[in-house]
Formats: sequence, C-alpha cells, structure tokens
Amino acid sequence: MVRTTISYKDGHIYEFSPDIDPIYTAEDGESLTFETIDSLNKEIQSDDDLLDSIPEEVNAATGPVAVEGAEPGDVLKVEIEDVRVNEAQGRVVTAPGFGLLQDNDEIQHPFTRITPVDESTETIEYDGIDVPIEPVIGTIGVATESETISTLTPHDHGGNLDTTDMTGGTTAYFPVFQEGGLLAMGDSKAAMADGEMCGTGSEIGTDIDVTVSVIDDPETSIERPLIRTPDAWKTIASAETLEDAVALANEDLIDLLAAEHGMTPTEAYTFSSLVGGLEISQVVDPLVTVRNACPAEYLSVPF
Amino acid sequence: MVRTTISYKDGHIYEFSPDIDPIYTAEDGESLTFETIDSLNKEIQSDDDLLDSIPEEVNAATGPVAVEGAEPGDVLKVEIEDVRVNEAQGRVVTAPGFGLLQDNDEIQHPFTRITPVDESTETIEYDGIDVPIEPVIGTIGVATESETISTLTPHDHGGNLDTTDMTGGTTAYFPVFQEGGLLAMGDSKAAMADGEMCGTGSEIGTDIDVTVSVIDDPETSIERPLIRTPDAWKTIASAETLEDAVALANEDLIDLLAAEHGMTPTEAYTFSSLVGGLEISQVVDPLVTVRNACPAEYLSVPF
Repeated sequence: MVRTTISYKDGHIYEFSPDIDPIYTAEDGESLTFETIDSLNKEIQSDDDLLDSIPEEVNAATGPVAVEGAEPGDVLKVEIEDVRVNEAQGRVVTAPGFGLLQDNDEIQHPFTRITPVDESTETIEYDGIDVPIEPVIGTIGVATESETISTLTPHDHGGNLDTTDMTGGTTAYFPVFQEGGLLAMGDSKAAMADGEMCGTGSEIGTDIDVTVSVIDDPETSIERPLIRTPDAWKTIASAETLEDAVALANEDLIDLLAAEHGMTPTEAYTFSSLVGGLEISQVVDPLVTVRNACPAEYLSVPF
Repeated sequence: MVRTTISYKDGHIYEFSPDIDPIYTAEDGESLTFETIDSLNKEIQSDDDLLDSIPEEVNAATGPVAVEGAEPGDVLKVEIEDVRVNEAQGRVVTAPGFGLLQDNDEIQHPFTRITPVDESTETIEYDGIDVPIEPVIGTIGVATESETISTLTPHDHGGNLDTTDMTGGTTAYFPVFQEGGLLAMGDSKAAMADGEMCGTGSEIGTDIDVTVSVIDDPETSIERPLIRTPDAWKTIASAETLEDAVALANEDLIDLLAAEHGMTPTEAYTFSSLVGGLEISQVVDPLVTVRNACPAEYLSVPF
C-alpha cells in the first residue's frame, strides 16, 4: 500500500480555526503518515538551551489534511496505527509561569534535560535511568466550529489534549465542524506521565501512521473527542478546572451508556460509578483535560 | 496461623480523632481480619430504600486497632492481603446534594439500585450486566494529629480515600500521629470506578485480611498515605480542589524520587512528568482525593 507522507515541512499550523487551509486532501479511508516536529521547533538541543518563556509559536501541528466527504455533523475517525520517534533525542523542560508547580520555589524555571534515544532498547535515558519509549501525540484535532484556538490549548475540537492514550492502537473520533474535517497533529512525546506535570513530556519529532475515514450521518453525535483504546472507550473533555472537566467527561459517557443499554441517565450515571472511571490527561495547559474510561465490554461502537 | 477477627460489632467509629480508643491491641507484625459493614449500615436493602440525605453516621470504620510500639513519627505498614465481600448484595445510590452531577436535572436524587452478588462468577449484577467484583476499601486510616474528622472525609490520616488501589495485593503506609497508630477501616465496595462519580460504588460488607507492622524511626517520613500496588508506588493526597490535591501528590512523589535517585527537586519534577502520573481517586467527598503513580522499577521501599 502506498502511503502518502504529510510533513510539517509541507505545512503546519499554530492555531486551529474554522478556516484553516488544507495542504492535502485524503480519500475517505486513506492511510497516511504525518511527520511531526517537536513542540519546540528543534530549538532545544542541549541542557543549556533554556526556555525563558513559552514561545508564541509552539506545538506545530502538521497539516491540516482534509478528508473527502467530511461534512459538519459527521464524525472523523482516525485510526492511529503507529507512532515512531524520528530523532535521536527528546527534551523535557520547565519554563517560567508554566507547569503544575510553577510557584514552587524549590523548582527551577527554566530547566532543560535532554533525553537521548536508545533505538536498540527502545528507551530514552534520563540521567542514567532508562524509560521505555511510549509515544504520545500531544496535539491532535480538527478545524473548530467558530473560535481560533492556539495549538497550546485543548477544547472540543481536540488540540492540545496531551492524552497518553493518543498512540498506536487507539482510534480517535472527532466531531466534524467544517467541510473536510481538517485534521492536524504534532507535539509528540517519547514518554509522558498522565498529568504532564512539569508542562512537557520528552518532546520529540515523530512519524505517525493513521487511516482517516468519515462516519457519515452518525447515529450518535459527539460534541468532543472520543477514543477507543485496546481496552476501553474514553470520553475526553477539557475545561478551565478539573472539576468542570470531569463533569463533562462523565456526562458524555452517561450519554453513550444510556444509548447502548437503554438506561435512564440516572442508571447510566450510577453504572458509570462502578467501572473504569475518571483519568487525568493533563493539568498544565490553558484548559485542563480529563477522560472518563469505560471498559470496552460495556460499550460497542456508537456510530 | 491464628488470625484474630475484629468485627464492626466489636467496635466502630464515625470519626477519626486524636483520642479514639482502641478495641484491640495487635502485636507488631500481627495478621488480622477486619469485618466491615456496608457504609449505609444495612439500611438500604431494596431499590425502594432511598437515601433522602447522607446520614450523620455513615462509613462505619471497624476498629480502631492499636499496634504495639507505634509512636508518633513512625510509619504504620498495612499489608492488605485479601478483601472478600461478606453479603449477598451491594447497593449503588444517589442522594440529594451529593455526587459529581448533583445539580444535573436529568439525574434522580435519591435513587437506589441493588447489585446482587453472584459468587460462582465473582460478579455483581447491574440490571442484567455482570460486573467483576474488584473490592475496594473506601475508608481506611489512623488517629489524626489534632482534628476530629468524619469518616466521610479523607485527609492526611487517610479516612475516606475511596481509592480503587486499596485492595488485596496493596500495601498501605500511614503516618503515625498517636501512640498505637489506631487503625480503622470500612466503607468497602464490591466495585467502584475511579472518581466514584455518583458518590458511591457498590457499597457492601467485607472481610479484610491485613498484616500490621510498625516502621520505627523511618528513614523517610511521610505526611500523607502512601501505597505500594503490585506495579507502582502511589502518593495519595486530599484537598478542597483537584488542582490542590494533584500539586500535593506530585510534591510528595518528587520527595521520594529525589531521595531515591539523588535528584534535585527540579530533576525529580521533570522525571515525574515522564512516567506513571496523576490518577483520580474520588471527586465527591468533602475533600477530593488523587494519587501520583510511579512505576515500581523507579522507586524502592523508602523506609
């Protein structure tokens, strides 16, 4: 199978908006490779390269790619087949005014630590400690309904979701707000903790294999991203506070459970309190992001 | 091995305070079984038994048990060997003014759903859906330093942590604030989602096998509960907001990583942003509870 590669060199965005211009139009069902640059645009190459502030242009997202036939109200299905690091080192950094513990006097801001890749062991190294490479696509999303949103910010269109499940083996579903959907992605990490506490994982360039397709006139409409990992369905919600985000993610899961099982909202709510549950994606971006996981045996494909 | 059983019928508390009286004194290293009653004191036995408000006396915690030799500044180690449900049904409920979606008009408050136990399949049933029994000790803790804290509330002494990892195979460590430590536990669930969104799991009585021992004059002092699951070390923190709780849980993990690896706080912080990460225990109690997980290969026993 010939797989077209879409590189950040071909085009990338720093904002998701309603009117981003596609750099490529994919057929419904086409398999592509997205080549991404690290979130800091290759500017951090040694421990001495410090980030005095978050750059205005950060999290370059390769794309956007239009998908033929995608219309507002549809769902864009993105099967993530593989994510491979494509450079010899990642970097984890702090920056002033950024990160969970940005006001903690014991923590240095800025600070950089280069994490070299060992291809033979599929690990990165943090000061002699080997950490398995478990790549994450930090930013992935589609053209927005009306707002212009920095690639540093997550919202209902996706964007900077910083969700560890966004990796090979997961299928992501996005609401389509604009014709073609207009998919873009970048800001990958070689490894990232749930929470992304210091504000970054091991930021690194990647090659991402995906297959994109359109779910036309879906039975279930979604307002926010939804993912199917190998084990679970997970709703994803971003909001100003974790409290607001978990309520949204729970409401979205209740809708899915109610539709699947013919439950009332109250039944779906109490059932959701028994299995899977709330997870943290990131607590450091302009909006924070959480998920609500439901083991796959309790939900089938809702479309 | 003879294992003494401590039953809620022998004694139970509804508040953790500095001066709770032990109903039993265990030897350092003694193995015990705690028999617990469901959090709602057997008052909810059918779908028609509704909870119009949270009772004043809720989450009866069996105990407290003093452990010989435990002195303030020590660490109480509680190896949880097994948690077995000891009644034929659990119950998941909502109540007015309680739960994540308490202000959502589509959700009924109060509402009760009985979840019968099937011993042969080790499942509970929610309206024809079988859910594996994965028991959770909802409330577990020790006498407090100075405050009197309801068993409905989690804090640095433990209490209503509602943490799914608090189950067989996990070892929990608590700071000792009072002579004997004074361990009590109850509020078990046959199953519970991370988050415990509706305010309960499947509330049920249990028999809990534990071995209690004292870590005298520990190398590492802890201010809050810490657990070792089969896979990970997890700090646990409770606070008024999820934002405050995740910061505490991250700071506690940074202390452990820094001590283990000789890292600076900044190094431990950035390393913590690469592996494991933040998890949600519960979002519904008077204080909310989170954990910060670090895979076991990166931390050894800190005491």
